[in-house]
Amino acid sequence: MITLTMLGTSALLPIPGRALASVFLECGGHGILFDCGEGTQSAARAAGVSLMRMDLLALTHYHGDHIFGIPGLLQTMHSMNRTKPLILTGPAGLEAQMRPILQLAGSLSFDLSLMPMPEAGRFLSESLEGARLTAFPTEHRVPSQGYCFELERKGRFQPDKADALGIPRKLWGQLQKGETVVCEGQTYSPSQVMGEKRKGLRVVFSGDTTCCKSLTEAAKGSDLLILEGTYGDSADAQLATERGHMTFAMAAETAKAAGARKLWLTHFSQRLEEPDSYLPFAAEIFPETVVCKDGMQMTLSFDPDAEKSGQGCTKE
Amino acid sequence: MITLTMLGTSALLPIPGRALASVFLECGGHGILFDCGEGTQSAARAAGVSLMRMDLLALTHYHGDHIFGIPGLLQTMHSMNRTKPLILTGPAGLEAQMRPILQLAGSLSFDLSLMPMPEAGRFLSESLEGARLTAFPTEHRVPSQGYCFELERKGRFQPDKADALGIPRKLWGQLQKGETVVCEGQTYSPSQVMGEKRKGLRVVFSGDTTCCKSLTEAAKGSDLLILEGTYGDSADAQLATERGHMTFAMAAETAKAAGARKLWLTHFSQRLEEPDSYLPFAAEIFPETVVCKDGMQMTLSFDPDAEKSGQGCTKE
Repeated sequence: MITLTMLGTSALLPIPGRALASVFLECGGHGILFDCGEGTQSAARAAGVSLMRMDLLALTHYHGDHIFGIPGLLQTMHSMNRTKPLILTGPAGLEAQMRPILQLAGSLSFDLSLMPMPEAGRFLSESLEGARLTAFPTEHRVPSQGYCFELERKGRFQPDKADALGIPRKLWGQLQKGETVVCEGQTYSPSQVMGEKRKGLRVVFSGDTTCCKSLTEAAKGSDLLILEGTYGDSADAQLATERGHMTFAMAAETAKAAGARKLWLTHFSQRLEEPDSYLPFAAEIFPETVVCKDGMQMTLSFDPDAEKSGQGCTKE
Repeated sequence: MITLTMLGTSALLPIPGRALASVFLECGGHGILFDCGEGTQSAARAAGVSLMRMDLLALTHYHGDHIFGIPGLLQTMHSMNRTKPLILTGPAGLEAQMRPILQLAGSLSFDLSLMPMPEAGRFLSESLEGARLTAFPTEHRVPSQGYCFELERKGRFQPDKADALGIPRKLWGQLQKGETVVCEGQTYSPSQVMGEKRKGLRVVFSGDTTCCKSLTEAAKGSDLLILEGTYGDSADAQLATERGHMTFAMAAETAKAAGARKLWLTHFSQRLEEPDSYLPFAAEIFPETVVCKDGMQMTLSFDPDAEKSGQGCTKE
C-alpha cells in the first residue's frame, strides 16, 4: 500500500491556500518527501501527515521554490528531538547546493547524509522490503531528475506445491514471508512454493520538466503519474517548452504515451487562479487526469485480481 | 499615519493559520518588515499587503523562525523585477548570518545593502520625512535587538504670526511644508510661523526577549507596543525567563511600567492552542492588551487634540 499526499501545488511562490509543489509518499511506516519549498512543513500539518516518519528527502532540482523549506523542516525535526537518520538526495551538485541550507539549519539531533542516487535508492530498499526508488533525468533549465517508486508484489503461495513437497504446515508462514527454513535436516526455500511475482505498484514524480523521452520512458505503466503542469492553456506550449515546463496538454500527452493509469497535475503558475478550470485541456487527451489541490490524498493498493488484469487498484 | 499588519503570530514553527512572527509597518508609501520567518510572503498576501513597498527589513535576531523566509522573499521580489533598493539590518553578526541566506537567494534585480543600525535608521529618515527608526538591545539567548519607530508631528501653523510678519498668503503653503521661501528680497523660514512640535507617534517591537530595562525604557510612551508572549500561563514565568522569552503577564507588566497606550501580543508557542484564552493573564495587569491573530491590522493617526491630551489616537 502506498499513500501519496499532495502537500502543495504552487510554482515559484507560495500563495494562500497553495503551498509550493511537494509530495509526500508513505509506505510501510517509511516516508519519502519529494521536494521541500517554503511552507512544506505547514502544509503537511494542514494535511494531517507527519514528516517525522520520513526517511528520505528526494529533490528534483535546486530552484528555491523546491528547497527553501528545508532549513525550517530540519530545525523542526531537531526541536522535536528526532533521532532517526535522514537521507537527502538530488541531482548533480547536491553537496554544493545543500551547503548554505545545512549551514542555516545548524546542528541537528539526528544524522543527515547527503547521498546521490542511486545510492540513496539502494539504502531505501534495504529498510523497506520490496521497495525500489530510482531517478531518471528530466529536462529543466538546471540539472534535474524525476523519481520512480516501485513496490513489488510477491507471487502467490501455492499450497498444493507445498503439500506435494511434504513441507510441514508450521513452516508455511515463514516461507510466505520470504524466509528460507531448515527443519529436520531439510532446507526449504520460498522459491519452491511461491508463484511468479505479480504486478506491483509504480508511482512516478516528474518535478519541473518539459516533455522528454526519459520521462515518458520512466512513466510507462505507472499507476500514478505526478507531473508538473505549470501552464494550463495549450497556447502557452512554446513558453512552457522554452522554460523547461509543461502545459496541461503536454503532461496529458506524456501520460497517454506512457500508458499511465492516472495523472495528477501540480506546480501551477500563480497566473492560474483556478487551475481546475484548465482541466479540459488535459482531460480530452488523458481522461484520468486530476488537477490537484493542496492536501489531496490517494492510497494505492495491490489489486487482488492483479494476476488477471495486470493492473493495480487505486482509491481516492 | 502608520499602518501595522501582524503577518504571523507563531513561535518556532509555522502552523496552519499561524505564520511565524513578523510585522509589517507602512508609513507614507514606505515599508519596514520586522523579521521574516518561513511563510511571511504568503502571510502578507493573505493579509492583502504588498511587501514590494518595503524599504527595510529589520531583523531582531537570527534564529531560523525569524529569518528563513528571506531567501524566498528576495527571489519573489527578483521575479517581479523589483528595482527599488532594499536595506537589511539586524544586530551584531549581520554579514555572517546573512551569507548563506544571500547565497540561496542568488543574483537579484535590485540592490540589497546590509547596513547595521543606526546607519539603516538614518538612511530611512532621509527617505521618509519625520520618521526615525532606532534599535535597542533586548535579552534573548543570542544577540538581539528591538526597534522603535517614531513619526514626529510638526507644530501648528500660526496664521496670526504670519500676518503680523506680513508674509504674503501665497507663501503660507510652502512654509507649512517646512520650506524656507525667498520673496521680493525677503527670506521667510518655517520657524517664524510654526508652533512647537506636537506629540507624534511611537511604535515599539520587541522581537524575542525576556523582560529587561532597555525594553521598558524604549517602550516608554509608545502608542503601540508589540511584545512577544511566547508563554500564556504565568506559571511558565521561570521557563520563559530562562529561555529569554516572556509570559503574557511579563509582557503586560512591561507595557504598564512603560505607560504604553496599547499592547499587542504575538510569537505564541504552539503549545498555546488558543492564545486568546490566556488574555486574562495580561489584561488584569494591562487592560489594553490584544492577543493578536494573523492578519490583524491597525492604523495609528495623529490625534487632532494631541496638544491638549498628549496622546495619539488609534483605530483598529
